[in-house]
Amino acid sequence: MTKKILVLAGDGIGPEIVDEAVKVLNVVNDKYNLGLEYTEDTIGGAAIDKYGVPLADSTLATAKESDAVLLGAVGGPKWDTLERSIRPEKGLLKIRSELGLFANLRPAILYPQLANASSLKAEFVAGLDILIVRELTGGIYFGEPRGIRTLENGERQGYNTLPYRESEIERIARVGFEMAQLRNKKLCSVDKANVMESSQLWREIVTNMAKEYPDVELSHMYVDNAAMQLVRLPKQFDVMVTDNMFGDILSDEASMLTGSIGMLPSASLDANGKGMYEPSHGSAPDIAGKNMANPLATILSAAMMLRYTFKHAESANLIEKAVGLTLDKNLRTADIMSMGCDKVSTSEMGNAVVAEL
Amino acid sequence: MTKKILVLAGDGIGPEIVDEAVKVLNVVNDKYNLGLEYTEDTIGGAAIDKYGVPLADSTLATAKESDAVLLGAVGGPKWDTLERSIRPEKGLLKIRSELGLFANLRPAILYPQLANASSLKAEFVAGLDILIVRELTGGIYFGEPRGIRTLENGERQGYNTLPYRESEIERIARVGFEMAQLRNKKLCSVDKANVMESSQLWREIVTNMAKEYPDVELSHMYVDNAAMQLVRLPKQFDVMVTDNMFGDILSDEASMLTGSIGMLPSASLDANGKGMYEPSHGSAPDIAGKNMANPLATILSAAMMLRYTFKHAESANLIEKAVGLTLDKNLRTADIMSMGCDKVSTSEMGNAVVAEL
Ligand SMILES: CC(C)[C@H](C(=O)O)[C@@H](O)C(=O)O
Ligand SMILES: CC(C)[C@H](C(=O)O)[C@@H](O)C(=O)O
Repeated sequence: MTKKILVLAGDGIGPEIVDEAVKVLNVVNDKYNLGLEYTEDTIGGAAIDKYGVPLADSTLATAKESDAVLLGAVGGPKWDTLERSIRPEKGLLKIRSELGLFANLRPAILYPQLANASSLKAEFVAGLDILIVRELTGGIYFGEPRGIRTLENGERQGYNTLPYRESEIERIARVGFEMAQLRNKKLCSVDKANVMESSQLWREIVTNMAKEYPDVELSHMYVDNAAMQLVRLPKQFDVMVTDNMFGDILSDEASMLTGSIGMLPSASLDANGKGMYEPSHGSAPDIAGKNMANPLATILSAAMMLRYTFKHAESANLIEKAVGLTLDKNLRTADIMSMGCDKVSTSEMGNAVVAEL
Repeated sequence: MTKKILVLAGDGIGPEIVDEAVKVLNVVNDKYNLGLEYTEDTIGGAAIDKYGVPLADSTLATAKESDAVLLGAVGGPKWDTLERSIRPEKGLLKIRSELGLFANLRPAILYPQLANASSLKAEFVAGLDILIVRELTGGIYFGEPRGIRTLENGERQGYNTLPYRESEIERIARVGFEMAQLRNKKLCSVDKANVMESSQLWREIVTNMAKEYPDVELSHMYVDNAAMQLVRLPKQFDVMVTDNMFGDILSDEASMLTGSIGMLPSASLDANGKGMYEPSHGSAPDIAGKNMANPLATILSAAMMLRYTFKHAESANLIEKAVGLTLDKNLRTADIMSMGCDKVSTSEMGNAVVAEL
């Protein structure tokens, strides 16, 4: 049975880091006879240059026929002055929505070898391992009505709508509970129920669902408090589940607690296990094409693909272990370089992981 | 000319900490013959107990006739099971809205004497001094339509609206620029213009206003990046201006960078200098009535009142200096206690500040 992967390298460092992830995938593909097959296309600024839009219909059609998408990164100054509706990010939002990728998994893991990279004191972050489950296809990102209108007095008003329906909350809450079951059985649901009705429904649904998961300890936290607690005592968290906008903010905050976002993968899943996999970091246009970028987040995203879409935990574990061994050998790209280590390029880092496999 | 202050002690530790702030105000009142006059009433849970609502009409009427409000804290487990519409927080939201307190100033300052309290490494936060200017009477907190409705398929949907009109953005942006002019002349406006139209209008208005403040260096940041940058390199910021919800999240995150939110005051101002002043921390029901709470945030809020509403910088500076001297003497309440210091009670701390005045 073949497994179809659409590779969308995108912008900036995207092509370089994706190349290394594909190298790694090829090794496990051969080793375990997985039947991985690749199609290449593009998204974001590169798609604007090629097709005139940040996500071409033909690309979307290929994505729909594929089992998984491996994405590099999107965006860069070159496209920042375009009209908003055709900027690179729109391609990302569209593919998430069109593929129904409602469950965004964003781990924030501090590798022991990189403990000093954090701006937080070691005792607060050593061993940090949080999973943020972010709702990705609903809420204020996609809510209607939205726009800029002119009021009766002639002033303009910008407005957006934040809607969540029961079924949307249920399916993402379920992912939160299930992930917690696979980990330390603690789930913290984050909302702003003291102010917003959409959060009140959110809290009600999550609370009711807890009965189905008696082994999971559920707590609720307001988003402002969550933003504080992540700084104050980040290791109190295991899995956090939250809406699209809060998840955007909190997952970035949590990732920075590790001090090394060049290490953090992400997965965006639909209801049937199809997924899009991409590093949590951006396109880093300043170092693009210089063979300097850290490919590990993308390599770890490929591992998530093997685990969540292809249900092949063995190869995923193998890749994750190889990444750890590579760090043990003190090989570091520039972003995670520290004294006494050996600085390597993007491709050298990829080759080093391959060597460990 | 008398200056009317409405004192709303509220819940939890509110009464204790407000008492100390009034003690301090009395000293500068005598010293400078300021003509301060107090009226006492209550808000939040205490108001629910007394009046059946978290903000009584009579209290609101008194607030409207006053020049400034000094608030302790609201909320506590006792009222957590009440119907949402009459919980303590609603009193806070109502008084902000009814008094038109659109400009919320939240400093995040790390006192050199408390440098070790932070979970961040000292080099990242030593000397931290950020001012967050949060829009407080608009956006998704108050936007209509809102509620929970039943859709055609029988599912419920919770929904909120995030509206900002030009004049609302202009007046808060102006506060941001003016505060930056009084400080290090750097203003960072935070939005999510890559996703929301309300943010696009926000960014446009702020950008246009920059022409009026050529001495201020303006930058724009997406909220997810801002949440990261606060952790990564907090001292890059001087003044940040943002909307109600983002301001709620980022100001709490920023306050926690200092490790001592028991030290952080806040001001909420209307267009004419009337203001409500309150500590940034909560009502801490667990230590209420124990004479343990840190009164310094409330005392510093009283100093902000003198500065912003009563335009009496001299007495404000004097109080701030007295707080610094008290810390220099190694006096600490339990929340900021560290080895080698002397632990003092709420009232002892208030007395110590009075002694320095
Ligand atoms: C680029 C942007 C639209 C996107 C988002 O806000 O979702 C990004 O910040 C992310 O988190 O993947
Ligand atoms: C209590 C709550 C409604 C309030 C808010 O969200 O504004 C609080 O968090 C604050 O920041 O003052």
